[in-house]
Amino acid sequence: MNLDATFSALADPTRRAILARLARGETTVQDLAEPFSMSLPAISKHLKVLERAGLISRSREAQWRPCRIEPRALKDVDDWLDHYRRFYDESFDRLDSYLKTLQGKEPTKAPVTKGSRKESGHGRRK
Amino acid sequence: MNLDATFSALADPTRRAILARLARGETTVQDLAEPFSMSLPAISKHLKVLERAGLISRSREAQWRPCRIEPRALKDVDDWLDHYRRFYDESFDRLDSYLKTLQGKEPTKAPVTKGSRKESGHGRRK
Repeated sequence: MNLDATFSALADPTRRAILARLARGETTVQDLAEPFSMSLPAISKHLKVLERAGLISRSREAQWRPCRIEPRALKDVDDWLDHYRRFYDESFDRLDSYLKTLQGKEPTKAPVTKGSRKESGHGRRK
Repeated sequence: MNLDATFSALADPTRRAILARLARGETTVQDLAEPFSMSLPAISKHLKVLERAGLISRSREAQWRPCRIEPRALKDVDDWLDHYRRFYDESFDRLDSYLKTLQGKEPTKAPVTKGSRKESGHGRRK
């Protein structure tokens, strides 16, 4: 697990846009460069950062060397987030509950008070 | 949503360790600095990066100005990951299925072939 490199690679909007494009299917550097109006060397530099972070791979078999998403590094980020999900799952549950009370509907569960945070359900999404 | 700042803040192991400490409860800069054998100014600098990224907040009420985790920015990372979960949920489902086959047990579902990726279930964790 190399979270430093992964988070650092994800901190750039062009690199996140490249990942979003690759989520639709593997493609070439040329096709990736097109919507960004960037030079091929500039895109290649971004791809190298993503590749070093383990977020993408480039096939060495085909001559057009397609790029594809590698799931392992994204899974590592997801696993890291597991330690923190209880914070936002709870706070958004509380907000949801409060909004339902405002609308005059029965809340889905009793509002969680600040003191009971530690006792309430831990985190993985339902 | 400011994913550039969030991912950039998370790309540092000390800052992730600070968040891990704050996940156990709010605390002072002095207490945060202790396990890192870092100077207070060095820790304060990391805290400012985390604060600007919306990952923590510092109370202005109490004189000891406790730091606490802010869930919103972490929730944004989680929402961003939603677009990619299908990649690793599927690939780990396939691995799980394959390992069960190796162990001579009935796989929980039929192995997913590469071609059927697009048709299989999308993303949010169960």
